[in-house]
Amino acid sequence: MNQQRIRDSFARQGLMKTLGATIDAIAEGRVILSAPLQPETCQQHGFAHAGLTFALGDSAAGYSALTTMPEGAEVLTAEMKINLLAPADGIRLIATGEVMKPGRRLVVTRATVDTEYDDGRRKTVAILQGTMVPVTG
Amino acid sequence: MNQQRIRDSFARQGLMKTLGATIDAIAEGRVILSAPLQPETCQQHGFAHAGLTFALGDSAAGYSALTTMPEGAEVLTAEMKINLLAPADGIRLIATGEVMKPGRRLVVTRATVDTEYDDGRRKTVAILQGTMVPVTG
Amino acid sequence: MNQQRIRDSFARQGLMKTLGATIDAIAEGRVILSAPLQPETCQQHGFAHAGLTFALGDSAAGYSALTTMPEGAEVLTAEMKINLLAPADGIRLIATGEVMKPGRRLVVTRATVDTEYDDGRRKTVAILQGTMVPVTG
Amino acid sequence: MNQQRIRDSFARQGLMKTLGATIDAIAEGRVILSAPLQPETCQQHGFAHAGLTFALGDSAAGYSALTTMPEGAEVLTAEMKINLLAPADGIRLIATGEVMKPGRRLVVTRATVDTEYDDGRRKTVAILQGTMVPVTG
Repeated sequence: MNQQRIRDSFARQGLMKTLGATIDAIAEGRVILSAPLQPETCQQHGFAHAGLTFALGDSAAGYSALTTMPEGAEVLTAEMKINLLAPADGIRLIATGEVMKPGRRLVVTRATVDTEYDDGRRKTVAILQGTMVPVTG
Repeated sequence: MNQQRIRDSFARQGLMKTLGATIDAIAEGRVILSAPLQPETCQQHGFAHAGLTFALGDSAAGYSALTTMPEGAEVLTAEMKINLLAPADGIRLIATGEVMKPGRRLVVTRATVDTEYDDGRRKTVAILQGTMVPVTG
Repeated sequence: MNQQRIRDSFARQGLMKTLGATIDAIAEGRVILSAPLQPETCQQHGFAHAGLTFALGDSAAGYSALTTMPEGAEVLTAEMKINLLAPADGIRLIATGEVMKPGRRLVVTRATVDTEYDDGRRKTVAILQGTMVPVTG
Repeated sequence: MNQQRIRDSFARQGLMKTLGATIDAIAEGRVILSAPLQPETCQQHGFAHAGLTFALGDSAAGYSALTTMPEGAEVLTAEMKINLLAPADGIRLIATGEVMKPGRRLVVTRATVDTEYDDGRRKTVAILQGTMVPVTG
């Protein structure tokens, strides 16, 4: 697996930059991203907006799928479902994406999004399940 | 229905401001939001990031639910599913959220997200279906 | 569109027979199925089991996708999501499946499931959204 | 946790009887159900119908939620999403439902459905994620 192409693809994503997201870990079929909780990406109660939580979880899932693809491929989200479990009231979101079923036509993924508090405690705030499709860039 | 509280709630959402989103229409059980496609909210191919499309569709759905709630209530997304139908390669996204089933405990919603080209043509790029829960702020 | 191959495929589905389901209408991109509410397909409160409601809605969606496929193709459900809106306490379920986005690799569909009372009134009990994939039989 | 009320509720479900389903295990927040693959519950290719796979996975998820509820409560599926990973071509389906987040108003669950071959090998054929709501019977 070529970690560099994951990092190159990630670097070209304007939204990830806007959200302040970074890649924390890349392994075969598993990618971890994180992003700070900031006023710019929160909702009206000061918690992470569902859109931020989704964007991070979906991207972690997508990049986990990309680790299973041949060089030169990219992936697009075909569909994704998120269940929000608790308000994201910490300081940082951490999303772990995992491949449940690789495939040439469809890759089924899951992701878990945790929030981290300033004392290091973590709480799961969302789980996602969805399908990525390979595209040739 | 009190349009002002929808606008007040929307104005407090940092992420909506970051995405450049505006409220285009508010009616009982139906809200339309839009946001420009900008490099800051796109993915690596220059199309709208799934996270942007989701955030806009989810917010339109959430505010459509809020129009059916009593004063003082707020809504949170319990779960939401998005199917992405086509790459969002236009200049603006337009999300229409609609209440499918109002309720005191759960509000089931749908949303459609279109992209608009600079000549005014539109194409549907995503459909969403999910559940909002009322919370007392 | 060849209605007969839809009917032939349907006739080979053991579960549809077990549920007492029939085809009510076939049009390009749109199929309507129905099934009686019987003790054999209900849950512990005497309402339609979510499994019955899902099976009927999913099949209506799948056959609506099949109407858009070339001869010889079949479709499989890749993923499907159901929101249950109200208890199905009538005498018959009626599921309408519709193609939202045709495609050679993925077909995005929606379905609505209504229950019908013995006086002919109807109530929507579920909405579904999901993806069908063509397979060559 | 009172296993008997799970068994009593299950015994009243006509659809579970029709599908030949049985309870294999009950623990706090975790329930395993299974059902044979029979012509009566298959689709046109002889594999388990998505409706069977869904019904079993959804029921396992629902009963896992019920183990976390007080006596006298029942649960209904509010929404459930299934991703089908592989054709279910074995002899028996085994569904494991698990509570991801208990709650008084909403219980978020996941389920995994495996197929078992006659030599005892197993393969995961579906994963589900969804929400149960408590109702007072």
